[in-house]
Amino acid sequence: MIEKFYVSTPKIGMVDITAAVKDAVAASSVKDGLCQVFVPHTTAGVTINENADPDVVKDIIAGLEEMVPRLAYRHSEGNSRAHIQASLLGSSVFIPIENYRLFLGTWQGIYLGEFDGPRRRTVCVNCGGAL
Amino acid sequence: MIEKFYVSTPKIGMVDITAAVKDAVAASSVKDGLCQVFVPHTTAGVTINENADPDVVKDIIAGLEEMVPRLAYRHSEGNSRAHIQASLLGSSVFIPIENYRLFLGTWQGIYLGEFDGPRRRTVCVNCGGAL
Amino acid sequence: MIEKFYVSTPKIGMVDITAAVKDAVAASSVKDGLCQVFVPHTTAGVTINENADPDVVKDIIAGLEEMVPRLAYRHSEGNSRAHIQASLLGSSVFIPIENYRLFLGTWQGIYLGEFDGPRRRTVCVNCGGAL
Repeated sequence: MIEKFYVSTPKIGMVDITAAVKDAVAASSVKDGLCQVFVPHTTAGVTINENADPDVVKDIIAGLEEMVPRLAYRHSEGNSRAHIQASLLGSSVFIPIENYRLFLGTWQGIYLGEFDGPRRRTVCVNCGGAL
Repeated sequence: MIEKFYVSTPKIGMVDITAAVKDAVAASSVKDGLCQVFVPHTTAGVTINENADPDVVKDIIAGLEEMVPRLAYRHSEGNSRAHIQASLLGSSVFIPIENYRLFLGTWQGIYLGEFDGPRRRTVCVNCGGAL
Repeated sequence: MIEKFYVSTPKIGMVDITAAVKDAVAASSVKDGLCQVFVPHTTAGVTINENADPDVVKDIIAGLEEMVPRLAYRHSEGNSRAHIQASLLGSSVFIPIENYRLFLGTWQGIYLGEFDGPRRRTVCVNCGGAL
């Protein structure tokens, strides 16, 4: 079963969704398996990175902003860089589930990367006990 | 079971494989679960991005072409940038399956990213009912 | 069940973990399914790329080093570029399992990408028979 929740995003930035994903995993009652976190969007992505110092995810955004070139893109909406940034992060991350809990490293948090906000975004959490 | 299909690719560019993936999901008879789309290649990748305006995926290619540097690489085949671009996209994408259908967002399509074509590429679709 | 193994890494570079992942898949006794390779770290990632010429993964590192900008980042540890490189590769790769074996392409190997070593890193292999 796919659990869904919604987040309000800034213009551009990372939103910590770790707590909401943990709630969805608890609701799934999966003991051992796999948790998919999926965003059904094309100008937002999802990534796992440091949860201790909030400056880290700000730096990731700063790096992606500098790295993705400002070209004369074709797409008339003017947000092609956001589409590229979404594909660089990807639309899914996966975390093993062990004994009803996400098997995250000590410093790992789960982040929605918004590149064309502000918007209300959907996050899908798809947990299974097969693995 | 892994369903396989084949696509003919351009020199560099994105190939929309959404319809073929949907066919493989239908063939799998999985009701609720997870669909892996995997390319067994090292100079092609796979990504999810906008399906409405075909200019978006052209812009993604243009951005990746500008972004990945032209260095004096060691690999003698001369296609190291293609290998880097493949790793930036990744070799798998995953889409939840809900009620026999891919749970894709409104604007999401599935694309094979070719960085060293033209070639005949294999795409593997691995669907399971566990999730 | 999550199998874990450990690798000693260089300062920056790719470590071939293909053989250790194959051992974990054999230990899992999964016949047909999915293998997740996950790193519980935030300055290391995992990718699939060419296994034939070892220069290819060196070139990928060289490209990522050139591509990710040297900015005045906020994070006081000074390793923000490593965090960005980890998110560009991602923390998981997945390979289909077919008849007890990883379904890897001819030229595909599995690599841990270290961006802030040397360290002892954990690799988790999570195999399931559901797919």
